[in-house]
Amino acid sequence: MAKKNYQHTRTAPASADGGWIYGRHAVRAALANPARQLRRVLALQENAEEVRGWLKSAQAGNADPGQLEVLAKPALDALLPRAAVHQGVALSTEPLDTPDIDDLIDGLPEPTGTERQIVLLLDQITDPQNIGAILRSAAAFGVRAVVMPDHGTPPVTGSLAKAASGAVEHVALIRVVNLSRAIERLQAAGFWCVGLDSGAEQNLPDLAAASLAPPGRVVLVLGAEDTGLRRLTRAHCDFVAKLPTKGAIASLNVSNAAAVALYELARNNPS
Amino acid sequence: MAKKNYQHTRTAPASADGGWIYGRHAVRAALANPARQLRRVLALQENAEEVRGWLKSAQAGNADPGQLEVLAKPALDALLPRAAVHQGVALSTEPLDTPDIDDLIDGLPEPTGTERQIVLLLDQITDPQNIGAILRSAAAFGVRAVVMPDHGTPPVTGSLAKAASGAVEHVALIRVVNLSRAIERLQAAGFWCVGLDSGAEQNLPDLAAASLAPPGRVVLVLGAEDTGLRRLTRAHCDFVAKLPTKGAIASLNVSNAAAVALYELARNNPS
Repeated sequence: MAKKNYQHTRTAPASADGGWIYGRHAVRAALANPARQLRRVLALQENAEEVRGWLKSAQAGNADPGQLEVLAKPALDALLPRAAVHQGVALSTEPLDTPDIDDLIDGLPEPTGTERQIVLLLDQITDPQNIGAILRSAAAFGVRAVVMPDHGTPPVTGSLAKAASGAVEHVALIRVVNLSRAIERLQAAGFWCVGLDSGAEQNLPDLAAASLAPPGRVVLVLGAEDTGLRRLTRAHCDFVAKLPTKGAIASLNVSNAAAVALYELARNNPS
Repeated sequence: MAKKNYQHTRTAPASADGGWIYGRHAVRAALANPARQLRRVLALQENAEEVRGWLKSAQAGNADPGQLEVLAKPALDALLPRAAVHQGVALSTEPLDTPDIDDLIDGLPEPTGTERQIVLLLDQITDPQNIGAILRSAAAFGVRAVVMPDHGTPPVTGSLAKAASGAVEHVALIRVVNLSRAIERLQAAGFWCVGLDSGAEQNLPDLAAASLAPPGRVVLVLGAEDTGLRRLTRAHCDFVAKLPTKGAIASLNVSNAAAVALYELARNNPS
């Protein structure tokens, strides 16, 4: 285990939101994930028959249609965070095992052809809905893993999982204590580190064409919307680049910026 | 006025959220907008000096540093919607005048060179934060106007304005009673109508290169995430296209899809 000492990868923290996953897409995707170990599955009466059907074909560990608990709406509302848009379904599970950076790197084949292997790294992005939407885009554009700091990142349940619309079941999430060391480890494995920064001189598409031609490996680093990349994170980047925007409001919501940047990097990558 | 009879453009509806604009970016941008007529400007003590500075240089009608009301946090919280992330600042104004489709078309020059004039049309998108993020992307990618149905669209204040981060001051918002007629009117003015649909056969970048080469005019139509384009709206589209995604989760959050599609359409349009 010595080689992992620098890393101290953690499992998800105890959930302030009770660890519930709710919403139709999120629940259905969790039930379809063989890596999930179910604890409880809840539904309103009007959703019970449909959820029993999901449980019958579920891949999740210990899934059993008999375990469904049918609750009245006030009881379900009371179990979940206030104002949770649960759509009548919720479940709790053991936390998923999370890989670490070494697991990720060990599992990657050499990139070939027109392939860019992309890893996304989130530096102090804390809004659960933004993170959820980013995970969804990561799944849609074939991102290999999303790296997030252990400290300050919300649990992968609740409104984050709802916004991810099932993507938490498909994208490898890696929590690390030290983002800079994670970048160094990825760089040692051949990743170019690109920080997205609206104040950068070079446009991302120009950079991608000039210096990141496939095949190759790219870590895309996104910072918080107001404060951007932290100084130390930025210092670790091989490149910084901006999205080519224009007009009076030149900056995007962070999840929208992530989607556009991932689209640009995946664009020449038809795999 | 006869030529506008088909349209029945409306001003923004009475606001369920009290019509407040809050959050630093949204308030500052509203104060900088000469078209705004201020009613009240509120701040916490810790933000008062900064907001007085904004008011001194404000372009908004009847802006006056003396009008700032300094409130204690419980009083400000009580005026605004529950859980509003107000960042210590809020204001109310008269609703902005909204243009109609004819105003938009009359004001457009002929497209030239590498220019695609883009109008965005939202079909039954109701989440204020998604709409706000979409307006921000519309501003960032030079969209000429955003057309929304009068019925079902939330007011352009509160969490929508907060998520738009000032973009509501810069993007022309057009509310219409009948989306199909708005599309017909735009088509008559030379716009190609493109519906975004994850079930379409053609990819948007292929369509853009093959059939939408600049200069030209494009209406991009986005439907609700779960239900997609309504049948009638889709029937009015000249083309439908999808974004080139891959992987287990192939669909994006609607604001992320809007950002990627606008980026693709603006990509060959360096104006």
